[in-house]
Amino acid sequence: MKGFVFHGPGQASWQDVPDPAVKEPTDAIVKVGVVTICGTDLHILKGDVPEVRPGTILGHEAVGEIVEVGSDVRTVRPGDRVLLSCITSCGRCRFCRDGSYGQCRGGGGWILGHLVDGTQAEYVRVPHADLSVHPLPAAVPGEEAVLFADIFPTSYEVGVLNGHVRPGDTVAIVGAGPIGLAAIATARLFSPERVIAVDLAPARLEAAHRLGADAVADVHEAPGQLVADFTGGLGADVVIEAVGVPESFELCTRMVRPGGHVANVGVHGKSATLHLEDLWIKNVTITTGLVDTYSTPTLLRMAAAGRLRTGQLVTHTFPLNRMEEAYDVFSKAAETGALKVVLGGEQHAEVAVPAA
Amino acid sequence: MKGFVFHGPGQASWQDVPDPAVKEPTDAIVKVGVVTICGTDLHILKGDVPEVRPGTILGHEAVGEIVEVGSDVRTVRPGDRVLLSCITSCGRCRFCRDGSYGQCRGGGGWILGHLVDGTQAEYVRVPHADLSVHPLPAAVPGEEAVLFADIFPTSYEVGVLNGHVRPGDTVAIVGAGPIGLAAIATARLFSPERVIAVDLAPARLEAAHRLGADAVADVHEAPGQLVADFTGGLGADVVIEAVGVPESFELCTRMVRPGGHVANVGVHGKSATLHLEDLWIKNVTITTGLVDTYSTPTLLRMAAAGRLRTGQLVTHTFPLNRMEEAYDVFSKAAETGALKVVLGGEQHAEVAVPAA
Repeated sequence: MKGFVFHGPGQASWQDVPDPAVKEPTDAIVKVGVVTICGTDLHILKGDVPEVRPGTILGHEAVGEIVEVGSDVRTVRPGDRVLLSCITSCGRCRFCRDGSYGQCRGGGGWILGHLVDGTQAEYVRVPHADLSVHPLPAAVPGEEAVLFADIFPTSYEVGVLNGHVRPGDTVAIVGAGPIGLAAIATARLFSPERVIAVDLAPARLEAAHRLGADAVADVHEAPGQLVADFTGGLGADVVIEAVGVPESFELCTRMVRPGGHVANVGVHGKSATLHLEDLWIKNVTITTGLVDTYSTPTLLRMAAAGRLRTGQLVTHTFPLNRMEEAYDVFSKAAETGALKVVLGGEQHAEVAVPAA
Repeated sequence: MKGFVFHGPGQASWQDVPDPAVKEPTDAIVKVGVVTICGTDLHILKGDVPEVRPGTILGHEAVGEIVEVGSDVRTVRPGDRVLLSCITSCGRCRFCRDGSYGQCRGGGGWILGHLVDGTQAEYVRVPHADLSVHPLPAAVPGEEAVLFADIFPTSYEVGVLNGHVRPGDTVAIVGAGPIGLAAIATARLFSPERVIAVDLAPARLEAAHRLGADAVADVHEAPGQLVADFTGGLGADVVIEAVGVPESFELCTRMVRPGGHVANVGVHGKSATLHLEDLWIKNVTITTGLVDTYSTPTLLRMAAAGRLRTGQLVTHTFPLNRMEEAYDVFSKAAETGALKVVLGGEQHAEVAVPAA
């Protein structure tokens, strides 16, 4: 079969690789139908995630069809259409028993495209299949469902739920890439008074409007002042960090009100400065997290019922064998306007992004 | 009357000052019976809290008797024995209505000995008296009750409750001064599996044992390893920071398990480094806070019922007019073994601290 193989920093190719096979009785083999590329995959390509070994097939988000299962798999069978979650879970360790699947110590957690071969291929082996794939409602097309493999549960669990968004809140979301945009859409489920999106790219701020932001702020134009103006000088009830650099995290801690929440969703490669000399007295709560995906079935049901805005996140679609071109478009988002790039499925076209 | 007046960094004296008088109809005047000195007072003396103006009487913890009330005061009257809380609350602003009295925007919050004259005097004016003093159960002597003006509710609310201590948890407490020791005593209310205290002073580690720590660790001897050994390498469920320097905060973030809580109680004058490159994936929750004192009535009831260990925190007692000597003993804790220094009351003696 073909797969997208990491060969070390800056090097990867769509190439021939051996077909995967069932190794453990809890494995399933899935034929990949639709797959996408994550910002984290770009981090891996840059060499920021050193535990990814050369030779690994990348990718941790896909929709596909079960083609084979090991003898212990009970919840899915060949022919089932499923979502492959970015998080694999053994279901037996102390963290899985607590619903903290992302922290699984039984051989799961984020392993696909990280510690084992991933989803950017024609077929993929999924360990611990019973708890690591989600049967898909027929009403959700693959190009939409694949957004629930990572970005929607991540934004919802690590941003909106960890940040304790409540009705009437002012929510500021720093970073309007796919994660920040999904945070806007899922924050709206809690009826906040307003959602303020902060980014530097006009096209992304425009997308933030489409996904449901009430106000947008250019990061170069004192976004903290905009938030202060909206809140009588207090700051936002909840601030969600969806970039992953020290500057944006520090901006979040300046924009939060006394007693408010900063929910970090961004993947960070560097430490940040925590201004405890200001924050010790402010009753703030700061959370970090890898997604657990406990919310994935709920979000899929809501998408099937038309209760979530999702479609406008996909800007480009490609056939599976144009993986290298898709990476190129996704990695040059500032030029291409790419938000979420999807491969496979039935329609392949660039979706025009409205000019800012 | 006499009061302990701040004259600028490094300068303060017990001296004649004008008697306080009712200024607002919500004020009460209290004759101070028992008063104590907080680590925060030492910070003020060092010049670390620049908003304290020269001429201010210090102190935010006391037990006393109401001698006069303004026309709008309803809940206390002259002759009542009361605890003066470190937090004053208007009861009307959005934060007070939410129970976040420490963040009061109606003229309260931490004001005594900070923005207005405090309790280290023979008499003190208490603004917003209805919600800012607590009638005292007769069973709690003044020397014990004064510990509930600040350190017990602070350790309990900002440390134990913000840290979400639960039965069976491993709790690490960094800093075994009065706040850390009160955190040990109140953490035990939740039946943790073990409480591990970390400090550098043998006398404080000995005190930690007396207050209920199961294990103590010298900060110079790899306390993180001790915590890891107790927890199968995972780290503590809850880590409470009770020092207030960057090094101790950073130690806390290294000792917490995936999915755990770091509750910062320390008063910080400098920023710390937040290692987001390690923490982004760990599902940690970091909280900061000034006490709200919503728990003060509950803690007083528990002390009256003998359900809290408190007495061993007071190491030295002085008559009120030996304030300068008491500050000297308290500020040289490493030499004097002082934990909590109490003035006023009926007994005045140095309580011997057991040798480490």
